[in-house]
Amino acid sequence: MEETARFTDAIKELLDGGREERLADLLAEAHPADVSHAIRELPVEDQVRVFRVLSPQHAGEVLAELDDPVLRELVGSLDEAEVSRALDSMPPEEVADVVEELPKERAEGLLDLMAEEKAEEVQELLEYREGTAGRLMSPDFVAVNEQATVAKAIEHIRRAKTGEGAFYLYVVDDHDHLVGFVPLHRLIAADPATPIRAIRTEGVESVTVDTDQEEVARLVQRYNLIQVPVVDVNRRLLGAIGVDDVIDVMREEATEDIQRLGGVGGDENVLDPPQAVFAKRLVWRLINLGTAVLAASVIGLFEKSIQTLATLAVFMPIVASMGGIGTTQTATVVVRGIALGDMTGSVLRRVLSKELWLGLTTGAANGLVIAVIAYAWKGQALLALILGLALVFNMLVAAVVGTLIPIALKAFRIDPAIASSVIITTFTDVCGFFSFLGLATLLIKFLL
Amino acid sequence: MEETARFTDAIKELLDGGREERLADLLAEAHPADVSHAIRELPVEDQVRVFRVLSPQHAGEVLAELDDPVLRELVGSLDEAEVSRALDSMPPEEVADVVEELPKERAEGLLDLMAEEKAEEVQELLEYREGTAGRLMSPDFVAVNEQATVAKAIEHIRRAKTGEGAFYLYVVDDHDHLVGFVPLHRLIAADPATPIRAIRTEGVESVTVDTDQEEVARLVQRYNLIQVPVVDVNRRLLGAIGVDDVIDVMREEATEDIQRLGGVGGDENVLDPPQAVFAKRLVWRLINLGTAVLAASVIGLFEKSIQTLATLAVFMPIVASMGGIGTTQTATVVVRGIALGDMTGSVLRRVLSKELWLGLTTGAANGLVIAVIAYAWKGQALLALILGLALVFNMLVAAVVGTLIPIALKAFRIDPAIASSVIITTFTDVCGFFSFLGLATLLIKFLL
Repeated sequence: MEETARFTDAIKELLDGGREERLADLLAEAHPADVSHAIRELPVEDQVRVFRVLSPQHAGEVLAELDDPVLRELVGSLDEAEVSRALDSMPPEEVADVVEELPKERAEGLLDLMAEEKAEEVQELLEYREGTAGRLMSPDFVAVNEQATVAKAIEHIRRAKTGEGAFYLYVVDDHDHLVGFVPLHRLIAADPATPIRAIRTEGVESVTVDTDQEEVARLVQRYNLIQVPVVDVNRRLLGAIGVDDVIDVMREEATEDIQRLGGVGGDENVLDPPQAVFAKRLVWRLINLGTAVLAASVIGLFEKSIQTLATLAVFMPIVASMGGIGTTQTATVVVRGIALGDMTGSVLRRVLSKELWLGLTTGAANGLVIAVIAYAWKGQALLALILGLALVFNMLVAAVVGTLIPIALKAFRIDPAIASSVIITTFTDVCGFFSFLGLATLLIKFLL
Repeated sequence: MEETARFTDAIKELLDGGREERLADLLAEAHPADVSHAIRELPVEDQVRVFRVLSPQHAGEVLAELDDPVLRELVGSLDEAEVSRALDSMPPEEVADVVEELPKERAEGLLDLMAEEKAEEVQELLEYREGTAGRLMSPDFVAVNEQATVAKAIEHIRRAKTGEGAFYLYVVDDHDHLVGFVPLHRLIAADPATPIRAIRTEGVESVTVDTDQEEVARLVQRYNLIQVPVVDVNRRLLGAIGVDDVIDVMREEATEDIQRLGGVGGDENVLDPPQAVFAKRLVWRLINLGTAVLAASVIGLFEKSIQTLATLAVFMPIVASMGGIGTTQTATVVVRGIALGDMTGSVLRRVLSKELWLGLTTGAANGLVIAVIAYAWKGQALLALILGLALVFNMLVAAVVGTLIPIALKAFRIDPAIASSVIITTFTDVCGFFSFLGLATLLIKFLL
């Protein structure tokens, strides 16, 4: 990571000195991923200067690596002709990625300027819904008929000008149906006269164009795939998804889960301009305000008890806070389990009894500790007992709520990560205040 | 995922009926990943029965896919001879993965039973520290001297019996130093007489045996690699890491970040037995209890004010709760940014001013809303004002704490995800109670 910082500094220095030629030399040798990483830290007018010294192909590769808000800002500051020249050198699925981020008019203008055949390929890809295999796939792949020999297949690979992404040779039957694949090293090792049919792996894992990208990622993880073939409803081969694109999906999905659990939008980047994330942050803060007011209104019911015995107010937040950690722990494990495919209906009972066991045991341990602390602090045995009991009860509520709410959301096809602490801790806040203040109010004459 | 459930049910049915032969047929056709996924849900005596009907090679592949607690339990219930037969058929890096999870004596006993050469390879891998590239790499790869021709390289691949994992041909000089690589499709497309030197890609990204696995994952993500070569300090090629193993690392790291942010151990699985996770859960709950008592002690300072005006107790948790969501949102984005390599020292000021801007604006919006609610509820303008101001102040504290604490942890080489809500919300709880109750106490005579 230090290298990256040094590279960025070097770019800034050359820009400040107006030495565009030296800059062009430096950038020509750099990996597009490094250039795009450095570009993010520059003001947009400098981004434009960097973009203009790159060769069209290199510029295209850099564009493909940029984060969406940076991409939009940069493309907005460039001429259409410059952008379309860069896009022309990119594979269609990457052009589609760039174009979909732009305002509609701009996108159409750019496609009009591109080579017709390429523009059509891009249009076709853009027709698949975002987040599906169709949108992720590249229409460039190598496939041969199962009747071909190894020698013929090799001849075919030589002529097909596929990019660096081909690691498997796909095998199709006379109707272009996918029937298997051959890893390239096996093709190399085979005798040239062997028919492909004899060395192909059968039962290839494939997805259809409308398979969700999360499902694609799960297949890649489970079966250790390098490339996933994409077929239509008739198993006709249409494209292939490379593992590098699947890794990007995994990264996005992990970011989404982490951020949603933390009450953030799901695709926020640390460098996003604050105005761009203001609305999403505010929504969660307002929802949180709503749930906090709800919890406060429960306390309001017991205002008279607090007036009589202000010590109750001192201990109140402890019960709420412990319920909070309880639900957060449980929900975190359950939400992650759902994402990894481990948390299925058939194990629900087992998970629920695990969480109840943990709620009871850790609740008892914590309840004992807090009762001792409360007794040492205020000298009231009954109050200490009520506090300890309320805490155990709240930990059990946390176990149930933390397990069932994410499962229920999943059942309603809502992202379970939305069950962020904001939502679920409302339950434990309300239950905690109710049990603690309620018990105390019932027994208040013994507490005075 | 439904298919998986049906497959598991079929296994259970055949086990219940004692039909081991039919079971063997069913399993022989199944992917090891599917078998290992189904096995997890069975009691250990049934796991043993399933294991025993598998061929040694299939059994090895299934073992390699199992989660650690399940693996330990299953291996503990099998004979050493059975396990070593399965291990014999696995590549050395996978044997190392299995063996390292077992108690020391058991591991040594198993290695003694294995073929000597294989056992030595495994021992060598086990000497690298867990979590480094050395432990992830496979010693099986194909490499040729840069002087060789394409024809010779192809001949070499034919003879080398490498597994399905070879996608690149590595190129070394006379001293076995890594000097480049050739993707196999390029090798296929090249003229047989071409020297490898002429078609190799130079400047290959490599790692050393002690590179941290997170760094390996970052390289794979940034440069879209399929395989990462591992070299020693002299750039001599020692092994290669496949993208499938890197994906497992990414998944583990994402789970760790998500769980640590939620105050859970970092490697908990929904199906772990409760006793196994009790200690880790309890530690976080006890830490949380400690911070909650700290917050309570701040309230304790103002007990007299609450006695005088119990309404204060009603609004107290709102300030704390809003501080909680504020720090959680900020810390979540920052921790994820650190994991993705976006949050570097050079952008700290930009991120901090973004968070302060968001804290001020959303704080003002929320402060206004809560002031209006409080005034409508209790009819006290001054109290409403104090509440609103305390909330704005707390949101600013949240912005600073949520940004700086993860960065500070990172600087001290502690996982920033440890900055889970448990730790950081203590700051906003304490500051929130102080500002709200402090202001109210100062102005209490105007509130009555």
